[in-house]
Amino acid sequence: MKKKFTGQKLWKKAKKLIPGGSQLLSKRAEMFLPEFWPAYFDKAKGISVWDLDGNRYTDMSHMGIGACILGYSDPDVDKAVKNAVDKGVASTLNCPEEVELAELLCKLHPWADMVKFTRSGGEALSVAVRIARAASGKDKIAFCGYHGWSDWYLAANLSSESHLDGHLLPGLEPLGVPRGLLGTAIPFHYNNIDELEEIFKENKDVGVIVLEPIRHDEPKKGFLENVRLIAKKNKAVLIFDEVTVGFRLTQGGSHLLYKVDPDIAVFGKAISNGYAMAAIVGKKQIMDFAQRTFISSTAWTERIGPTAALATIGKLKKYMVQEHIKKVGNKLIIGYRKLAIRHSLNLEVEGPSSMISINFKYPKGNLIKTFFVQQMLKRGYLSGTSTYITYAHSEKSVRDYLQNVDSVFCQIKEALDSNSLERNLEGPQAHTGFARLT
Amino acid sequence: MKKKFTGQKLWKKAKKLIPGGSQLLSKRAEMFLPEFWPAYFDKAKGISVWDLDGNRYTDMSHMGIGACILGYSDPDVDKAVKNAVDKGVASTLNCPEEVELAELLCKLHPWADMVKFTRSGGEALSVAVRIARAASGKDKIAFCGYHGWSDWYLAANLSSESHLDGHLLPGLEPLGVPRGLLGTAIPFHYNNIDELEEIFKENKDVGVIVLEPIRHDEPKKGFLENVRLIAKKNKAVLIFDEVTVGFRLTQGGSHLLYKVDPDIAVFGKAISNGYAMAAIVGKKQIMDFAQRTFISSTAWTERIGPTAALATIGKLKKYMVQEHIKKVGNKLIIGYRKLAIRHSLNLEVEGPSSMISINFKYPKGNLIKTFFVQQMLKRGYLSGTSTYITYAHSEKSVRDYLQNVDSVFCQIKEALDSNSLERNLEGPQAHTGFARLT
Repeated sequence: MKKKFTGQKLWKKAKKLIPGGSQLLSKRAEMFLPEFWPAYFDKAKGISVWDLDGNRYTDMSHMGIGACILGYSDPDVDKAVKNAVDKGVASTLNCPEEVELAELLCKLHPWADMVKFTRSGGEALSVAVRIARAASGKDKIAFCGYHGWSDWYLAANLSSESHLDGHLLPGLEPLGVPRGLLGTAIPFHYNNIDELEEIFKENKDVGVIVLEPIRHDEPKKGFLENVRLIAKKNKAVLIFDEVTVGFRLTQGGSHLLYKVDPDIAVFGKAISNGYAMAAIVGKKQIMDFAQRTFISSTAWTERIGPTAALATIGKLKKYMVQEHIKKVGNKLIIGYRKLAIRHSLNLEVEGPSSMISINFKYPKGNLIKTFFVQQMLKRGYLSGTSTYITYAHSEKSVRDYLQNVDSVFCQIKEALDSNSLERNLEGPQAHTGFARLT
Repeated sequence: MKKKFTGQKLWKKAKKLIPGGSQLLSKRAEMFLPEFWPAYFDKAKGISVWDLDGNRYTDMSHMGIGACILGYSDPDVDKAVKNAVDKGVASTLNCPEEVELAELLCKLHPWADMVKFTRSGGEALSVAVRIARAASGKDKIAFCGYHGWSDWYLAANLSSESHLDGHLLPGLEPLGVPRGLLGTAIPFHYNNIDELEEIFKENKDVGVIVLEPIRHDEPKKGFLENVRLIAKKNKAVLIFDEVTVGFRLTQGGSHLLYKVDPDIAVFGKAISNGYAMAAIVGKKQIMDFAQRTFISSTAWTERIGPTAALATIGKLKKYMVQEHIKKVGNKLIIGYRKLAIRHSLNLEVEGPSSMISINFKYPKGNLIKTFFVQQMLKRGYLSGTSTYITYAHSEKSVRDYLQNVDSVFCQIKEALDSNSLERNLEGPQAHTGFARLT
């Protein structure tokens, strides 16, 4: 491996020019391996990523934070996009692809009638919340999980900074979120229906419920059904955030798996294999309110987003991609667990099989994680504590990866036993969350 | 011209699947010519647009609502984009193009130090407002002009629906905007410095000023300078919204022309010639607050946006595009005025030369406008009451257009004199604003 560290040099420059260095928390180099993470890619294909010095890595980590579900540079999606570029991506008129996509999304979700599009998941959730508030006539939102950077969500942290604890990202600072939103976003815990019922008992003006149907834990029996019942009883609009999990488990929203229909489902990421695209899919009587409030943006009309989404969804179906992902992902889960036992490591492994996360359950867990990333990087892997399995990951690629994990777990065990982890770490520990980032 | 009306058929279908039919108010077919507007494009190149029936039109109207400043399908921008597609548009690592673009934007705006990116102009303004509120520690915003669909802006209409009157889009319904934002967005009129001073006198907690440096009217002598002084005196963050006007008048923000520096400038549309992209450019001491509040989105890291922006800005400079636009735009302004005199029409023509709007100053102005669009469409033109001149518009294309306008103005004059406008309109009148749309 060439050791030019061109990526790290550029990253240092980026941090002077871009607050935080990247537009996404999870793409900050310090989240993986401070001072040594390659940070930038020149090229990406399948599960291979080439850095600015020409080093090739195999990606067993985020895969574009879950966006590139078919693998990087999918030939069919890219061909469709280049065709769209040749025909022109924008004009005074609309592109017909967005109608085709709207129709397809309604077909995949038989409960839905209408669709709106944006070009990012967070923005799509803001649109969904605007429509839901308009439809319910109420401002308060009960939510669990993570839903992006927008005011409506971060408002939950206005009263105290601990409100979002247990909601994926503790310590989120709501600086710049207007104080008038205090009390408008009320958190509850996933799989805790009593908490949600309590929220509606204590607040007469909750009009919206937002949650991911599934993140890591499976929904308890009856949980999603009860959320649906509570929404109906209280005339609240139920929004399923499918930005991360959508299209990973089924041909559409993960809620199809559990047979519980929301009023609105929001998609992003995997819908378009890395191209900027997001969709708000909903029932007519709710979506009609989008006409009674102003929601409009020029960038939402460009042609690449719907073109990439049509090609991606088409391919997901044609090749039964979700089944491939499930099969390959399960191999990884089983492999991680076997290796943890082999090396007597206290490792937590969570699914679903398309979004696997591991957690070294030690007081020095973050130190171990950083060492793991460092050693795997030396072996040519982009690796961390979460893996988004894609269509481009084969069973063989998981076997090869696990062979390397085997060796590194062995090193971790030895270092733990000899108390030499710190010594063997060549740079600072990874950052663990927003609060620690500077 | 083939009269299949495939576009109108698809438009009718779209309105059942997409609230309003389009993601953008200004791309709704009814805004131009109900029942007859082609609505969809198959292909666009230069200033030509082909509809779904293969009819070719010359675009003398919005040109992608100002986005396609080089003309449709610019070969150099598209080549750069296709190269990015071939290398992969997303991965777990970042794309180096965003650092290059951040550096370029700071170079073009010597007062600025740091940049953040989103993929739509409205979203970029929301990010700018979050950062500005965080930096000022105050929630209230004084603004003039139009700034998109977001809560912070539509909040101005919460107290009464007339607040946004005179702010480009009267009658905007703020349904779904939380009532806790009441009083947080306070409008003033462009070129009226007294109103802005009054806002700061009456409110102690205004921390942000948002305006477009120029829309149609030129800033009065001292206006922008005084806005800057008021911001400084009150420790308010000054945001220039350059989404529409940016890169049209200068190599960067229009404020460079007036030598007044904001704390943040927001760009979109023309920055990337039709590809989804937007940028928040600001001073370090303000932008640093983006690190103290959570702002993060996966879609903002894809590669096409910064690639298209670099190629577009590079070409704008190489070919001195703004000068071309000014020259060609002035021909159109002069031409419109001459023809109005020739046909004794009471026509208001507004600049700047890169964004020209006309207004038939008659009680039946909207009827005349609709007739104008109808007759120009028959002559193969996409035309309306506003024209965004681009690099692809030549002096000859303006001459040819004006010849056709000459004939249609003659028809308008005759119809006005014989009171036969209604009779000659083949469909309903165009919609004029949000309130009228259903």
